[in-house]
Amino acid sequence: MNTLSVTGGRVLRGDLALEFSDVLIDVEKGVILEVGKSLRGDEEIDARGGLVIPGLVNAHTHIAMTLLRGYSDDKPLDKWLKEDIWPIESHLTPEDVYIGSQLALVELIKSGTTTFCDMYFHMSEVARATDTSGMRAVLGQGVVTVGKKKNDAYSDAEKGLEFAEEYNGFADGRIKTAFMPHSINTVDLEYFEEHIPRARAMGIPIHIHANETLEDVEKTIKLHGMRPIELAAECNILTSGDFAAHCVHVDSNEIDILASNGIGVVHCPASNMKLASGIAPIQKLQDAGVTIGLGTDGAASNNDLDLFGEMRDAAMVGKLSAKSASAVNATSVVSMATVGGAKILDIPAGRVEPGLVADLAVLGLEAAHLTPVRKCVDLLVYAAKGSDVVHTICDGKVLMKDKEILTLDESKIIATASACADDLNGRIGNKRVI
Amino acid sequence: MNTLSVTGGRVLRGDLALEFSDVLIDVEKGVILEVGKSLRGDEEIDARGGLVIPGLVNAHTHIAMTLLRGYSDDKPLDKWLKEDIWPIESHLTPEDVYIGSQLALVELIKSGTTTFCDMYFHMSEVARATDTSGMRAVLGQGVVTVGKKKNDAYSDAEKGLEFAEEYNGFADGRIKTAFMPHSINTVDLEYFEEHIPRARAMGIPIHIHANETLEDVEKTIKLHGMRPIELAAECNILTSGDFAAHCVHVDSNEIDILASNGIGVVHCPASNMKLASGIAPIQKLQDAGVTIGLGTDGAASNNDLDLFGEMRDAAMVGKLSAKSASAVNATSVVSMATVGGAKILDIPAGRVEPGLVADLAVLGLEAAHLTPVRKCVDLLVYAAKGSDVVHTICDGKVLMKDKEILTLDESKIIATASACADDLNGRIGNKRVI
Repeated sequence: MNTLSVTGGRVLRGDLALEFSDVLIDVEKGVILEVGKSLRGDEEIDARGGLVIPGLVNAHTHIAMTLLRGYSDDKPLDKWLKEDIWPIESHLTPEDVYIGSQLALVELIKSGTTTFCDMYFHMSEVARATDTSGMRAVLGQGVVTVGKKKNDAYSDAEKGLEFAEEYNGFADGRIKTAFMPHSINTVDLEYFEEHIPRARAMGIPIHIHANETLEDVEKTIKLHGMRPIELAAECNILTSGDFAAHCVHVDSNEIDILASNGIGVVHCPASNMKLASGIAPIQKLQDAGVTIGLGTDGAASNNDLDLFGEMRDAAMVGKLSAKSASAVNATSVVSMATVGGAKILDIPAGRVEPGLVADLAVLGLEAAHLTPVRKCVDLLVYAAKGSDVVHTICDGKVLMKDKEILTLDESKIIATASACADDLNGRIGNKRVI
Repeated sequence: MNTLSVTGGRVLRGDLALEFSDVLIDVEKGVILEVGKSLRGDEEIDARGGLVIPGLVNAHTHIAMTLLRGYSDDKPLDKWLKEDIWPIESHLTPEDVYIGSQLALVELIKSGTTTFCDMYFHMSEVARATDTSGMRAVLGQGVVTVGKKKNDAYSDAEKGLEFAEEYNGFADGRIKTAFMPHSINTVDLEYFEEHIPRARAMGIPIHIHANETLEDVEKTIKLHGMRPIELAAECNILTSGDFAAHCVHVDSNEIDILASNGIGVVHCPASNMKLASGIAPIQKLQDAGVTIGLGTDGAASNNDLDLFGEMRDAAMVGKLSAKSASAVNATSVVSMATVGGAKILDIPAGRVEPGLVADLAVLGLEAAHLTPVRKCVDLLVYAAKGSDVVHTICDGKVLMKDKEILTLDESKIIATASACADDLNGRIGNKRVI
């Protein structure tokens, strides 16, 4: 057995941190063997002076959109999509998606994320890039049928299932798949009716966007006479083990449905603020017992993939929207970014505990903005940043050591992505603005 | 003449960035001489591949509160102050304030801030630490009289003026002072009446907290029959050149007063969210023509002093509260953190222009989360972090080069502050929680 130890750091366990403990890892199996004192592996990561946390889980994103970072800011969702994002996305080639994914993977690893859930297109490119990076992911081809010809719509839905079938278990099992119809309003009911039972037969979960904006909800009510989560439950679009992103505008009946049906919610506070969509009633969802994860959404509406920023946003805006400073506290936010996301994605991750997957991040604590160290969960949410992460480990393998990524060529990827974005700007006839 | 050049970077000018320009600085005078091509100084800072921005202005903070970082989180303002902050502050010695200030100065310089405005106590210690650091500041002893015996109250107000008189122009002119009664509800009107005219006679501005919470506003209405900004204008507590922090709960008449009287507002979005105080109507204040700066407030309610985080918060929550994604756009937010704050503090800073003070920060742009570079103001607000700052220059002197602070001993300060916070925890009988 080949082992790795992460030694001498404080280790986050639930709400508190164990002082100066070691984590012993089975590298082949990619699992945590033991957490305690005097554990030495064949190889060793020095975590002295640092804080060992579970690798963070970004439960809703579109990673290749890093290429569109800064392409359209300060616009509401509807115009942002129709005037800017969809037109530029129509120019994205499989190679662009690969390059944008690589850029994102660098950013994710650097900021301590070890698992992400991605909905986009040309998903085999995302899978290919993820495989090389060493990260863990749940991937799905986004399905949109509304506004398409029948053949194209059908083939889009088919592609969603084909990708899910082909790539489930890819990258030594680090990649799982899900069926991902974009949303209630962008997919015709007939495809939900035909393809969702087929996805369930494959044993994969369903992931959609839901109740992101008020307009979104009103449209569903107008078309179907009920609210999106009500319709999703009624039509078996979402059930236990499935998960919906956003859920900004959910009423109390929808909250009950989410809780009683075991449907997970991925909270994306930065995107919801930036597009002025609103803020999900997180404290109410928590009180109802809904499992909540945290997602950055794509980099065009955030504009980064740093889950530390997302944790801070979730806590800050959670208090604002609940009108209570004790709402959405630091502990609950760290849970969203770790165990919550892991539970939603059905991965035995999110805690530094024997038997769970060895997905970890180590933060350096010797920094002015992290001094003094009092309660570590508070420090993580209110003061730490992705740039404080020093080492990232996924599936027992070291992806980043001393801030250097070992699985990807960071400088080369940045240069390639930069050139690719320039080229893309040119393709759509835009002048690059600095 | 001794000159310094910052060469080869993109230089932010208003809304756009000039590609690959140099900035020439007169080191003795601490002013910018020229911005253009092929400018070489006696010494040179290499900014190739980077973005040169005006040094950021943190227009409302309490820097020594870094020692209280993480001491009380997830509590509303009233309980936070009365149960936690005021009791621990009563134990702070002048030496503690010096140590906390040093820790903050490291954090500020590292994140590209060159000027801050501080209201606290033992302010001569803040001045002493600031002097050594090379930073620029507007400092004032916070005055609180309510709840104190007459003699103590009077002496507190006197101290406010004495400090302002003694330290105005300190540190080669880098330190200016202001008279800082804490707020309408914490200072008795008689002290405003006696001491404010004396402050005006000294030619210094007045800075107070105003309209931070709804309770705050209601209390003033109950006691004085009018809202805080109305009372402040009526009693000449605030007039042209003065400035108020927070202004979360201001009505349209108060917005008119702020605009027509030339009273500046310092927006502190993170603190206002974290304490669930609410969000200032920034778009309305902007539309009315009020000068707006940005402040982190103290590190106990933020919990860091990174103005990049504050810019992001201001934009994000500004859109949310205005229910419009085009509200509080990136350009307006960068203005708040640069020219807005500089105007409020009456310092010829906030732009990279000949004749203005040579206060600059240089960000490294070669990072995944900053790729690709499109519009630089958007990048600054939505993707950049304090940790992207590589060099910081204030008053023509290099305070940080290649992420190493030249004026302060970072490691020693972190160790000292950490020990000091431990000691402080012990003094108040608290167990240190990790």
